[in-house]
Amino acid sequence: MTNFKSIEKAQQGTLYDWKDIKTSISFDHKGLIPAIAQQYDSGEVLMLAWLNAESLEETLRTNRVCYWSRSRQQLWRKGEISGQIQLLKELRFDCDGDAILLLVDQTGPACHTGRRSCFFLGIDNNQAKILTKPLISPEKLYQK
Amino acid sequence: MTNFKSIEKAQQGTLYDWKDIKTSISFDHKGLIPAIAQQYDSGEVLMLAWLNAESLEETLRTNRVCYWSRSRQQLWRKGEISGQIQLLKELRFDCDGDAILLLVDQTGPACHTGRRSCFFLGIDNNQAKILTKPLISPEKLYQK
Repeated sequence: MTNFKSIEKAQQGTLYDWKDIKTSISFDHKGLIPAIAQQYDSGEVLMLAWLNAESLEETLRTNRVCYWSRSRQQLWRKGEISGQIQLLKELRFDCDGDAILLLVDQTGPACHTGRRSCFFLGIDNNQAKILTKPLISPEKLYQK
Repeated sequence: MTNFKSIEKAQQGTLYDWKDIKTSISFDHKGLIPAIAQQYDSGEVLMLAWLNAESLEETLRTNRVCYWSRSRQQLWRKGEISGQIQLLKELRFDCDGDAILLLVDQTGPACHTGRRSCFFLGIDNNQAKILTKPLISPEKLYQK
């Protein structure tokens, strides 16, 4: 069995069958795994959301990021309403197989508030500060 | 009440009291929130781990990242054994208050395998590939 522990000492460049690896992914008790979306060229961290086995397979098959919406309890093809899609450039697992890094090409804002990144509230010196402004208003984003 | 929904239309630069914001953080049913560690200058995503309320407070107070270890069920002052600490440069919440971005200055490898980043397994074309090699062997890392 090819589990994550067994491959951590492997040489750079070593290849494994995806079908052997995927049986060792650590989904949580709800069948989900957290995924970080990072803009592939600028390095900006855009958002954190969740995938289940089905959305992971779809993302790899289509090269367009599909999450699992915890609030709507359904597949969430990022940008299906707003048009602000994420094209997948690379998908990586971490050492424990319990987190995913998605290197993406994000069209426009990733955030439902219209901001490029969801991480717009900075904490410092007992204050919270709004760090960025929307690229586009949420009203425009969701009027389509 | 200053919840995350109520501040999303605020102007860039708007300030809030941290003590009003922190009551609205969405910890999960185990009292945890996922945190992404990103190297502040290079933009490299290093790891994803978890904080509880106590480790969050400690991280903000000391400017040295402290996680909650789910496997050991105790505070995990990153680098306490290996010496590979994370100095906090900035801490940001996402729009829903259910994920954290830690901009850090990582000493040496972030990963227990000795690699700089935990995200070293790439998936492509039905293959998984080891993308990087250790900066230092795990044996050396944990012999201190």
